[in-house]
Amino acid sequence: MLRTAFCAVARRGPHKAPPGAPHLRRRLGPISAFASSVDSRITRFCVEKTDLKDYALPNASWCPDMLSLYHEYLEKTKTENWVKLPSFKSNRDHIQGLKLPIGFESPLSSAQGEYRIHTRGIQMEGQGYEYVIFLQPSKKKSVCLFQPGPFLEGAPGCAHGGSLAAMMDETFSKTAYLLGEGLFTLSFNIRFKNLAPLGSLIMLNVDIEKIEDQKMYLSCIAQSRDQQTVYAKSSGVFLQLQLEEE
Amino acid sequence: MLRTAFCAVARRGPHKAPPGAPHLRRRLGPISAFASSVDSRITRFCVEKTDLKDYALPNASWCPDMLSLYHEYLEKTKTENWVKLPSFKSNRDHIQGLKLPIGFESPLSSAQGEYRIHTRGIQMEGQGYEYVIFLQPSKKKSVCLFQPGPFLEGAPGCAHGGSLAAMMDETFSKTAYLLGEGLFTLSFNIRFKNLAPLGSLIMLNVDIEKIEDQKMYLSCIAQSRDQQTVYAKSSGVFLQLQLEEE
Repeated sequence: MLRTAFCAVARRGPHKAPPGAPHLRRRLGPISAFASSVDSRITRFCVEKTDLKDYALPNASWCPDMLSLYHEYLEKTKTENWVKLPSFKSNRDHIQGLKLPIGFESPLSSAQGEYRIHTRGIQMEGQGYEYVIFLQPSKKKSVCLFQPGPFLEGAPGCAHGGSLAAMMDETFSKTAYLLGEGLFTLSFNIRFKNLAPLGSLIMLNVDIEKIEDQKMYLSCIAQSRDQQTVYAKSSGVFLQLQLEEE
Repeated sequence: MLRTAFCAVARRGPHKAPPGAPHLRRRLGPISAFASSVDSRITRFCVEKTDLKDYALPNASWCPDMLSLYHEYLEKTKTENWVKLPSFKSNRDHIQGLKLPIGFESPLSSAQGEYRIHTRGIQMEGQGYEYVIFLQPSKKKSVCLFQPGPFLEGAPGCAHGGSLAAMMDETFSKTAYLLGEGLFTLSFNIRFKNLAPLGSLIMLNVDIEKIEDQKMYLSCIAQSRDQQTVYAKSSGVFLQLQLEEE
């Protein structure tokens, strides 16, 4: 039933790979194929010249921990094969040509309004989701530096559990897509350990645990910078979908 | 470890119960005690006279399904013991006097800024979370009518999985608090079945499955109004905390 429901096929976005680049594969193949298709996706995703605003850049609302760790990871992009991901206001700017299941229709489809990815829905700096994701393809992992603002509240002073879950799901999503064509969340499981304070840095460490039968299994630990406080642990399963040339 | 972390004790909010009302209990007792403490919490929660804006009221962005089902459940509040919950911009307006764990501090604590519950963080009508929760205490269940707006997008035209998870968690949260002093999410598990279209009605049917060892176990099915399309199923565990008089 699930397979039928998620029968989507994704096509290449607007940034085509150069002629001669290998076709993207349905399943992860040998390491070389894995590496080349991953490189190709990351290159298209991290478009160098664009008029789109990148929201994953420091602003005045970032706390000192968030800012210093951002610069620390930015240094790692030069020496340790980390990649800093841009973050536009909508997934439509990142991934185009996604064919949704037959019969799927949103009542908003015909409207010409503005769309925003959930985690960039609150627009004023510092009030909602402030975050930046770094990816380390060679180790199949990623890190999200997340600072929840006062409009993500649950209990007074604390990040709403749903906002932490959404941030984890979004980090899983980008990691799964770029490192293995994982496009849709099949399941997500989170266990909360400690309340996460608004306005502070929460570090999300994500690992791809395994890939089996077109499913990617990811895990995440959300913790303080010094790793002394674990806020939550989660796991997610993503469905891999075939990517085709347009 | 978890118990130590969540050592909070909640006290009564600003709307005190009348003299002679029974003390709220740590655990659910016999049916009569359960009923009276639940009634007392609901009465305080559904404050009749307030200057606070109730966001769980129809506005021009609501789709016809959302509007008609709202009126259907509003009718049930007169005949079938359903209760329509108000929804203010912050949990601080609903539940005051919550003592957080010793040592917990948000960097924003000293700031005098505005706070919003995550699911009311996007302020413009129709763009974010449009929802209203109805509770049926006698059957330990609730219904949330949810219309995700274009600022909650995941895949184009679809609600972000994280937004659906957050809406479920929030509905669990209010249900658990009002029907059994369940205050903090311990764990949450969601399985996605079909993509949920933005701008359409998503019906969340929530049931309290059981209460054991200060833990409340809840389940949710998110589906279309005609129940022909299941979008996701979830389960959650909430920790019950002692409520004390101020």
